Amino acid sequence: MSQQVVPVALRDLQRPVAGELARVADELGRIIAADFPIIADVNEHLVRMKGKLFRPTLLLLSSQAAGSPDPRAVTLAAVVELIHLATLVHDDSVDHSVLRRGMPTLNALFSHQVAVIMGDYLYSRAIIELVRLDDLEPLRVFARVTNEMTIGEMRQLEAHDKLAYGEAQYDQLIRAKTASLLAGACEVGALRAPAAHRAALARFGLRLGMAFQIADDLLDYTEPEAVTGKPSGLDLKEHKMTLPLIAALGGGAMGPEDRRLVAELLATPEPADELVAEVMRRVAAAGGLDYAHRRALELAQQAEAELEILPASRARDALRDSIAYAVERRS
Amino acid sequence: MSQQVVPVALRDLQRPVAGELARVADELGRIIAADFPIIADVNEHLVRMKGKLFRPTLLLLSSQAAGSPDPRAVTLAAVVELIHLATLVHDDSVDHSVLRRGMPTLNALFSHQVAVIMGDYLYSRAIIELVRLDDLEPLRVFARVTNEMTIGEMRQLEAHDKLAYGEAQYDQLIRAKTASLLAGACEVGALRAPAAHRAALARFGLRLGMAFQIADDLLDYTEPEAVTGKPSGLDLKEHKMTLPLIAALGGGAMGPEDRRLVAELLATPEPADELVAEVMRRVAAAGGLDYAHRRALELAQQAEAELEILPASRARDALRDSIAYAVERRS
Repeated sequence: MSQQVVPVALRDLQRPVAGELARVADELGRIIAADFPIIADVNEHLVRMKGKLFRPTLLLLSSQAAGSPDPRAVTLAAVVELIHLATLVHDDSVDHSVLRRGMPTLNALFSHQVAVIMGDYLYSRAIIELVRLDDLEPLRVFARVTNEMTIGEMRQLEAHDKLAYGEAQYDQLIRAKTASLLAGACEVGALRAPAAHRAALARFGLRLGMAFQIADDLLDYTEPEAVTGKPSGLDLKEHKMTLPLIAALGGGAMGPEDRRLVAELLATPEPADELVAEVMRRVAAAGGLDYAHRRALELAQQAEAELEILPASRARDALRDSIAYAVERRS
Repeated sequence: MSQQVVPVALRDLQRPVAGELARVADELGRIIAADFPIIADVNEHLVRMKGKLFRPTLLLLSSQAAGSPDPRAVTLAAVVELIHLATLVHDDSVDHSVLRRGMPTLNALFSHQVAVIMGDYLYSRAIIELVRLDDLEPLRVFARVTNEMTIGEMRQLEAHDKLAYGEAQYDQLIRAKTASLLAGACEVGALRAPAAHRAALARFGLRLGMAFQIADDLLDYTEPEAVTGKPSGLDLKEHKMTLPLIAALGGGAMGPEDRRLVAELLATPEPADELVAEVMRRVAAAGGLDYAHRRALELAQQAEAELEILPASRARDALRDSIAYAVERRS
């Protein structure tokens, strides 16, 4: 993995908030602590599969970039990661996923039951912690966002007529499912900033989040399991309509034979790896990957434009770098 | 079902708050409303299987009995029912239950996925509504309670050495799983009352809730499916250790042959109806049902004592009646 491919490393953009980020993991541990054995076991597993802390990074950078230092920032950053974790745990359970971040999911390692209950446990802990901060504002943002995320998940299940699934529906889906929490992270970081800064950062997070999800959906087409920690082609296997396929189907570049193959895949409950691989090749040949990449770059530009209202700072530069990171990352 | 068997009908104790209760269902509908088709379908189903509104009843009666009229009472009553609904939806999914209130569960009617996501949807709607009330106090109570409920659910899964499962563990379980929300309902009804009233009503709700759950666990032994809407003996079939069995095993009244039979049932993944029925008979013969009933009455007395601090009122009388209802109900 050379610098040309990943122009911005996560640790680079985390530099201006490295001190706070180091405290986020401890804070997270404090918030979810339980003296009940199985919950302690599960928590330990979750802490071990510690993610990249991208959402806490955005919250802390937004706080710094908006020039609104907030003594609660580390706690709020831990809470946004906790909400993210709770969502992942339920998503994996809903999707019957077995791997996450290259490690077994809770539903695979423990059970489906444990995953459902632990998601609820983590989310209610997040709410308790927000209540402790004695301020309704972060609660207002995060409650709205978590509700939007459930609607996003429902949209994902709902897609019945898959061949007719369009880009507008996809946009709604990724806004709700992914971008809303990134927008919430940026907005909550700027709660004490002037209203215009707060609103700009929320819009920044939304565009960034959409670009982030498109990039994620592209990875399913482009990167092997060894890099992402998830089997490649999994979305197609599970009949998830993501932008590369939607664009390939919609752009007129796919011929009748291509479409027949896609329809066959969508009609097969557990499509064979060869069929999945063939559809992946045809999506690429029809320009689906290029289209999705262009769309991600377009959203990236819109995100970047939102940062102009902020005063120049290392944190603002890092937010700009986070766009490149979101769009170009390989895992 | 004659008056001797059910000395207090739910509608009798609901009389002092009948006007408010009538508005709770509409308020609930407003809070969970969604313009997203599948969520609207699910909501409609949930509203059709409308429960007895026992928790809203307690909240409204507590508010009235504590002499602390609160214009938000109907909304708070709807929220406590909503939290209860969200919990039921996830519980049914965790337990793979197919019937609830005599109707199909969400996981049976829609899918496991829909049930997990809808539980999250309903719970986050409850939080949004509480935030809208612009007061951290109800949020503080309900966030703590929902977290306790998840720990209770985990306790239920955790019980490994079932034959050694004792009454102290059972008490912890039913406090967390059931009594915490009834206590929360009573406490939130009295948020604007003097602190001593609020605390007494919280303790009242806790004792009432424990008695309520013991009565519920007894119904599994005593009432046929036609009355409860749930198959009889289901807890035993699912290897759930409830008070009748715990007491029968612990009291020395079960001989070696009885214990062997219980052990056989607990070791059988899907025990036959005859085995379940035989264990039910032996639990009854060993005095397990009588013990559980006595324990429920003891808790009922403790609950009643907590009401003495309140001024005499129709609402206080109704709270007292709610104890008899909780202990003697047949479904």
